[in-house]
Amino acid sequence: MPQLVSVAEVRQAAQRLDGVTVRTPLVPFPGQPPSRLASQSSSLLIKPESLQPTGAFKLRGAYAAISALSPEERRRGVVAHSSGNHAYAVAYAAALLDVPAVVVVPENAPKLKTDAAVACGAQLVTVAATLAARVAATEELVAAHGYTMIPPFDDPRVIAGQGTIGLEIAADCPDVDLVVVPVSGGGLISGIATALHGEDPEAGKGRDARRTVKIVGVEPESAADARDSLRQGRRVAWPSSRVQQTIADALRVEQIGALTFEHMRAYVQDIVTVSDEEMLAAVRRLAFEARLIAEPGGAAAVAACLFRADELPAAKTRVAVLSGGNIDPELLARVLAAPPAPAQ
Amino acid sequence: MPQLVSVAEVRQAAQRLDGVTVRTPLVPFPGQPPSRLASQSSSLLIKPESLQPTGAFKLRGAYAAISALSPEERRRGVVAHSSGNHAYAVAYAAALLDVPAVVVVPENAPKLKTDAAVACGAQLVTVAATLAARVAATEELVAAHGYTMIPPFDDPRVIAGQGTIGLEIAADCPDVDLVVVPVSGGGLISGIATALHGEDPEAGKGRDARRTVKIVGVEPESAADARDSLRQGRRVAWPSSRVQQTIADALRVEQIGALTFEHMRAYVQDIVTVSDEEMLAAVRRLAFEARLIAEPGGAAAVAACLFRADELPAAKTRVAVLSGGNIDPELLARVLAAPPAPAQ
Repeated sequence: MPQLVSVAEVRQAAQRLDGVTVRTPLVPFPGQPPSRLASQSSSLLIKPESLQPTGAFKLRGAYAAISALSPEERRRGVVAHSSGNHAYAVAYAAALLDVPAVVVVPENAPKLKTDAAVACGAQLVTVAATLAARVAATEELVAAHGYTMIPPFDDPRVIAGQGTIGLEIAADCPDVDLVVVPVSGGGLISGIATALHGEDPEAGKGRDARRTVKIVGVEPESAADARDSLRQGRRVAWPSSRVQQTIADALRVEQIGALTFEHMRAYVQDIVTVSDEEMLAAVRRLAFEARLIAEPGGAAAVAACLFRADELPAAKTRVAVLSGGNIDPELLARVLAAPPAPAQ
Repeated sequence: MPQLVSVAEVRQAAQRLDGVTVRTPLVPFPGQPPSRLASQSSSLLIKPESLQPTGAFKLRGAYAAISALSPEERRRGVVAHSSGNHAYAVAYAAALLDVPAVVVVPENAPKLKTDAAVACGAQLVTVAATLAARVAATEELVAAHGYTMIPPFDDPRVIAGQGTIGLEIAADCPDVDLVVVPVSGGGLISGIATALHGEDPEAGKGRDARRTVKIVGVEPESAADARDSLRQGRRVAWPSSRVQQTIADALRVEQIGALTFEHMRAYVQDIVTVSDEEMLAAVRRLAFEARLIAEPGGAAAVAACLFRADELPAAKTRVAVLSGGNIDPELLARVLAAPPAPAQ
C-alpha cells in the first residue's frame, strides 16, 4: 500500500501557498432568514474555491507541486493533463514561477479553461476525450523533452496542496461535523480528509482518537466510479462514453487514482451522487442566495446538501466545498434566466 | 466640529463582529493572465462584501450598533430607515440579537431587499422615495414607541462597524496604495478611512506620519453630492428627482451626513463618478472574471478602477470595495446574457 500523505506535508504546502492562493472564507448559505437559522437543526457553510485566481481549487495542488521542483526541473519545464481546471492552474502556477508549461487537454475541454491556460503562456496539446489518451500523450512529452509531469490528482504534493483547504476549514469552523466534497480523480477529497483526519504529531498526545468530522464525496450520476470503487473495495473504471454525459466537465474522470483510492478508503465515509439538473439548480441558488458563481461540477457538493440531504450523515454544522466557478458564460446566463428543466 | 471616530472604536467593533460577519478575503481581479500580471504596473484586489450573510457590508455597522445597546434599549426595539441594504442588515442583526425591529423604506426600494428584511421578522413601513420622508417617519416611530434609531451612516458606532473592513484590508495587504469605495451617505468610506488613517496610539511612537494610502470615493453621475460637498467645503444636497435616476439603488442618497462629511474632509483624497453603463459593465466583468455577483452600486468602485483609471491617483496596489451583491435576478440574467448598451 502506498504511504498516505501526512498532515505535516499539508502544512508545508500551506506555507508555499501563502500569498499565492486566496484564503477563502466560509460563507453561510443561504444568507437569508436568521430568525429561522437559529432554530434550524443544521447549518451549511460554503467554502468558495471559485474565488481562487484561476477560478478553482486546482491552483493549490499545482502551485504546491511546481514550487517544490528543483531549479533544474523548473528549467526543463512541466507538463500536465487535465479536463480543464488543472490545465489552467498548472499554466498559471508555472507562469508565476517562470517555468515553461505544456498542457494536454481533451478535445471537449471548455474553451474558457483552455483559452485561460494559453493566456498564461502555456502550450496546448489537444487529444481525444479519454483519460487514457491524455495519459499517453503526456508520457510521450515527458520522454521526448524531459518535462516533469504534474499529475491532476494522484500525487502526494498535489494532494497536500488541496489539503490546505482542510486546514482552513478546521481553523475557521472547529466544530464542523460534516464536510461534503466534489469527487473527480479524488485529489481534493483526499487532501481535505488528510488535513482533518491524518495522524498529527503536532496535535499532541491528547489527541488519540481521530476527529469525529465525517467526509462525504459527491459524484455525478453518470460518473460514479469513486462510489463503486469504495463499495467494491477496488478501483473501478466507468466507460468514457458514459462519463462524458455529465454536464459537469470538471468531474469527467473514468477512474480515481491509486493513491487517492487509499486515502478515500482510509478517511471517506461515503460517496453520494447528484443529477445534472440538481447541479444546475445549485448553481442558480448559489448565485441568488450566496452571490457566488459556480460551474456545474463545482456545485456538486452544494447540490448534495440541498437535494440529497437524506443520503448524507446527520450533522449540525456542514461545510460544502464549492470547488470551481469556471462556467460557460452562456450556460450561466441561461441558468440564471430560468430554473433548470425538471429531472427526466 | 463633531469628534471623529477613533481606531480604538473600530477595533472594539471588530471584536463584536467576530463570528457574525464573514472575514472577506481580497480577490485578485482579473483572475487571468498572470504572465501579464507580473509585468503590470498596477494590481487590483476586490474586497467582496457581497459575501456577507445579508449580501452587503451594511451588516457590520448594523450589528456593531445594535449589539452595543443596553438590555432596556434592546427590549424596546430598534428602527432604521434605508434604501434597502441597511434595512435588511438591521432586520438580520436584530433577529440575531432577539431585538424587535421596524424598517422604514422608500416605495421604490428593491423587493429583494425588503422581502429579506421581512423574512428576518422585521416590520416594514413604506414611505415616499426621499431621504426627508424616511427621516420623518423614523422620528415619528421613535417618539411614539421609544425605539432606538439605528442610522444608516451618520453614527459613530455604525461608522466604526464599517471601518472593520479597513482593518482587514490593512492586515491582508499592508502595502496597499489606494482604496476605492462606493459612496452613498458616506459611512463605509468614513469607517475604512478611519481604520487606515486615524490616530492610533496602539501603533506606537514610530508612527507619526499618517499612512500614505489614498482613499477615493465613487458616486453615480446622477448622485454626485459627496463630490460637490468635498469640493465646495460644505454639505451639498442633490435633488431627489435626480438622485433617483441612477440604477444603483444603494447609492440614491441626496446628501452625505454631517459626521461622515467631517471624516471625508479629514481623510478622503477625491470623489470620482461613474455612469450606470459603467457599473453594469463592471457587474458583468466581476461575474465572468472574478466569479463574484455585484449589484450596480456595489460595483461602482470596480467600475471606477476599470473605466476611470485616469481620474484616480497613480497606485501600484489598489483595493476596490465591492459593497453589495443584492441585484435583481432578472437584471443580473440580462446583464450576463448581453453586454450593457453603450453609454449615450
